[in-house]
Amino acid sequence: MDLWYTEKHSDNVGITIKTTKTLFSGKSQYQQLDIVETLEFGRMMLLDGLVMVTERDEFIYHDMITHPALFTHPNPKKVLVIGGGDGGSIREIMKHPEVELAVLCEIDGLVIEKSIEYLPTMASAINGSNPRVKLHVDDGLAYIRDHQNEFDVILVDSTDPIGPAVGLFEENFYRLVFSALKDDGIMIAQSESPFYHADIQKSMYHNLRAVFPIVEMYQAFIPTYPSGFWSFAFSSKIYHPTKDFDHDRAKNRNFKTRYYNEELHRGAFMLPTFARDNIAE
Amino acid sequence: MDLWYTEKHSDNVGITIKTTKTLFSGKSQYQQLDIVETLEFGRMMLLDGLVMVTERDEFIYHDMITHPALFTHPNPKKVLVIGGGDGGSIREIMKHPEVELAVLCEIDGLVIEKSIEYLPTMASAINGSNPRVKLHVDDGLAYIRDHQNEFDVILVDSTDPIGPAVGLFEENFYRLVFSALKDDGIMIAQSESPFYHADIQKSMYHNLRAVFPIVEMYQAFIPTYPSGFWSFAFSSKIYHPTKDFDHDRAKNRNFKTRYYNEELHRGAFMLPTFARDNIAE
Amino acid sequence: MDLWYTEKHSDNVGITIKTTKTLFSGKSQYQQLDIVETLEFGRMMLLDGLVMVTERDEFIYHDMITHPALFTHPNPKKVLVIGGGDGGSIREIMKHPEVELAVLCEIDGLVIEKSIEYLPTMASAINGSNPRVKLHVDDGLAYIRDHQNEFDVILVDSTDPIGPAVGLFEENFYRLVFSALKDDGIMIAQSESPFYHADIQKSMYHNLRAVFPIVEMYQAFIPTYPSGFWSFAFSSKIYHPTKDFDHDRAKNRNFKTRYYNEELHRGAFMLPTFARDNIAE
Amino acid sequence: MDLWYTEKHSDNVGITIKTTKTLFSGKSQYQQLDIVETLEFGRMMLLDGLVMVTERDEFIYHDMITHPALFTHPNPKKVLVIGGGDGGSIREIMKHPEVELAVLCEIDGLVIEKSIEYLPTMASAINGSNPRVKLHVDDGLAYIRDHQNEFDVILVDSTDPIGPAVGLFEENFYRLVFSALKDDGIMIAQSESPFYHADIQKSMYHNLRAVFPIVEMYQAFIPTYPSGFWSFAFSSKIYHPTKDFDHDRAKNRNFKTRYYNEELHRGAFMLPTFARDNIAE
Repeated sequence: MDLWYTEKHSDNVGITIKTTKTLFSGKSQYQQLDIVETLEFGRMMLLDGLVMVTERDEFIYHDMITHPALFTHPNPKKVLVIGGGDGGSIREIMKHPEVELAVLCEIDGLVIEKSIEYLPTMASAINGSNPRVKLHVDDGLAYIRDHQNEFDVILVDSTDPIGPAVGLFEENFYRLVFSALKDDGIMIAQSESPFYHADIQKSMYHNLRAVFPIVEMYQAFIPTYPSGFWSFAFSSKIYHPTKDFDHDRAKNRNFKTRYYNEELHRGAFMLPTFARDNIAE
Repeated sequence: MDLWYTEKHSDNVGITIKTTKTLFSGKSQYQQLDIVETLEFGRMMLLDGLVMVTERDEFIYHDMITHPALFTHPNPKKVLVIGGGDGGSIREIMKHPEVELAVLCEIDGLVIEKSIEYLPTMASAINGSNPRVKLHVDDGLAYIRDHQNEFDVILVDSTDPIGPAVGLFEENFYRLVFSALKDDGIMIAQSESPFYHADIQKSMYHNLRAVFPIVEMYQAFIPTYPSGFWSFAFSSKIYHPTKDFDHDRAKNRNFKTRYYNEELHRGAFMLPTFARDNIAE
Repeated sequence: MDLWYTEKHSDNVGITIKTTKTLFSGKSQYQQLDIVETLEFGRMMLLDGLVMVTERDEFIYHDMITHPALFTHPNPKKVLVIGGGDGGSIREIMKHPEVELAVLCEIDGLVIEKSIEYLPTMASAINGSNPRVKLHVDDGLAYIRDHQNEFDVILVDSTDPIGPAVGLFEENFYRLVFSALKDDGIMIAQSESPFYHADIQKSMYHNLRAVFPIVEMYQAFIPTYPSGFWSFAFSSKIYHPTKDFDHDRAKNRNFKTRYYNEELHRGAFMLPTFARDNIAE
Repeated sequence: MDLWYTEKHSDNVGITIKTTKTLFSGKSQYQQLDIVETLEFGRMMLLDGLVMVTERDEFIYHDMITHPALFTHPNPKKVLVIGGGDGGSIREIMKHPEVELAVLCEIDGLVIEKSIEYLPTMASAINGSNPRVKLHVDDGLAYIRDHQNEFDVILVDSTDPIGPAVGLFEENFYRLVFSALKDDGIMIAQSESPFYHADIQKSMYHNLRAVFPIVEMYQAFIPTYPSGFWSFAFSSKIYHPTKDFDHDRAKNRNFKTRYYNEELHRGAFMLPTFARDNIAE
């Protein structure tokens, strides 16, 4: 059966993906959740009709939202992930032996539940078997308001700044993250596509710079995201992502990574001119 | 009228783009040529139904096929472009004042003619007005067979290794390019998507290494190409693309580039692990 | 180039047609007009993005909007077509030798002009060569207001009841048509798809019955229209479309018809139950 | 999630339907079977990627494959359906009180099983609750070879003449059906679209006329089938479908039909000229 999912990346362009099966389709309190089978990308999770992760290319997103911060911070013991209910970020964080505790704060319990059921390779660290992981089904804003000076690294693994995630792109939220971080803490947030979302980037980086002394954008290629060209914001109190990067620790890591490596760590911060221009003050 | 162009990037995934008008549609001796108007990407040229260039993102491809070689070679005087009938590569080459002559050898005269007519910002340097540019409507293989030890830089700005361009991915062709280059010459060739075309890359880089002592892959993101993640092969007799790169010359260039810059030059060679693995011997 | 036109027949279903070329694309004072080449249906004309006629199946629509009335009326000398700027209805009317004058009143001169240019087999009778045809580029309502008791048959060859044609589905318009008809006149109007447009049909036939003593629906299959199942309203002062139908005159016509015939004339009024129910009072 | 099923009706045209859920997807020994939920047509069953039935328009197909024969035959006691595993034909046959036994001979048990599970309104008479219905999971050819002079009416409710149904369009098969019918028996077979399948019709009606003395085509409009214009072959030993039709029995039937009625019975045989031409000898 010729069944195609099409995600419009704007009114005038989209990606179209052949699907073979709907594994789950349901509505939570917050959003529509679909998990489908595809021939090209394996299983694919959608929230409100937008691709969140696919089995084939999730390794890129999850490598890049986690390892740059965890190899820059000299000793990340306590890490918070806001959003990220599929578990892929937590799985990568667990590869860092110095991490003693990773907390997942996801607003939508259905995302966690169905990821455990249908995306077990992503959710392997959030299925209850890992004593270094704690789950909170809660609003990220509410959670960090109650936590001061506690985390070494906070990852904002959010959806786009529409729907439930809109508050996660505002200055007020970044101030709360700043307070929840220790004095040498680092925040990473996904920051949309430099090709399609120049306006969102401009406003987001402006908000970040109002709060953090060090703010740098870095890039990754993610084929199933709009334009394939994606970005992350590295915001930090004292550590710089390339100047303070411990190349040897990254090189001598005892796990394999299919996207991240110690060379690419530096290259990811070397941006195309138009992307730098998006966030120039 | 809701008219959409869909390019399948494999049997199971594609990009779909709204078009508003067909500006030209015709068959040359070699291939089908279409030029359409789109809302998202401006004018778009297709050969045999595959997107070649669009007005909106062509700056990326043309920056990256030209400037890395021309800022690595210390004194590029004579440059050959094989393929590239849209003229975008020649336009970028002309920005380098040390280039005395650029030769465009394109097999299909219709591509040149219609690019001049419909894509004037790309074809601005091949419309006859530039005395430093020569056009040859000819087979690239035939052309370089007759030219020995002549060029500083040769750019293989070809279509995919199917149809008229298939010979441009074979070892025998690379030997001819090697001979056509001077003793310190550099060849650049587009080398497909590391995400979708691992097999083509494996074979192509194997062939290149059989001929050139220095072969390095570098990357660029091109939204309208399969996966958005694209690559180029830097093949060289003596100059290394990052060790011999003159950072200051690139930095002090007297023209603007929207994708390329002297930082990104280095970053482009820092590849994801899976892309490095594609071409590991 | 894989270029597909998709017309949504509702939010949840559509027809998708491969096109090879845009022959004309422009905006008149009233609407967007596109003429494209397709492989399946030949040339296709669209108004505001909706298929009006295609070369391959226009014979069905034009047979069925004209011949049932012209073979029911015993002596149709003067015929008015409101809309129908492609000329197909006039072409069929001209096949009836008893017709002395056919008037085309089309609001949009661009439709006439471009049909003559790109759809010559449809527009063969409106290109100025036929002395029995008169063209008026005018609003149909304005035109009939000035004409009383003048026509034997009036055909309302309109677009859907949105945009410029909306007034052509109202009781007030039907009263004007009634006045413009002679005492034994017949009006035909396209009346949408019984499958998708039950509500429009209900209201339209209610309006018609408020004006005409005889109102009957008949059907035709038109593959490029929504659902493929289309209908026409036969409204008449004294002649009944089947009881007063002259079977022998239709049978002995001296022209060929690929859809209409004297048997089908009767069969077209034998409707599916659900279609009859749509317009039951 | 924007998930669309597209069925190509030829290389150059298709229908596209929004689906919301895959209810079943599996492979039997004979074919791929999918049952999906759609917004426009309710549940939809596909075999090898082609639409077989939808909840919204199945009433048309099932009315028209059954009632014309059952109201023409003066006393249909024993009826065989070959194919038709969704049960819709049997459900309609059961509305005729004079039918004592209806046999369903479907080659693919999975179609029956999943229709009972997911299409209960169609399969209401084949779920085991009706003592006048017998199911045989068997090849139709094998079945009728063993049955001589036994049935009043045989309905060939097959898929298109590709795949498992190809034998059901050949003269040899029609001879077996002829033998399995009583001396006044009637066979009905779906006979494709007159608009798209002129060649299949030509050959099929030629084969039928080599076997049956009376062969007539009749039409129905089915929105989800290619072109929306569909046909059936009425083949009979002695009864003619309109001359021997008992109008009053049909009119006084004690069940409702949303498509079929005693007027439409006659009208269905009044064909467009091009459809008649398809099957002219």
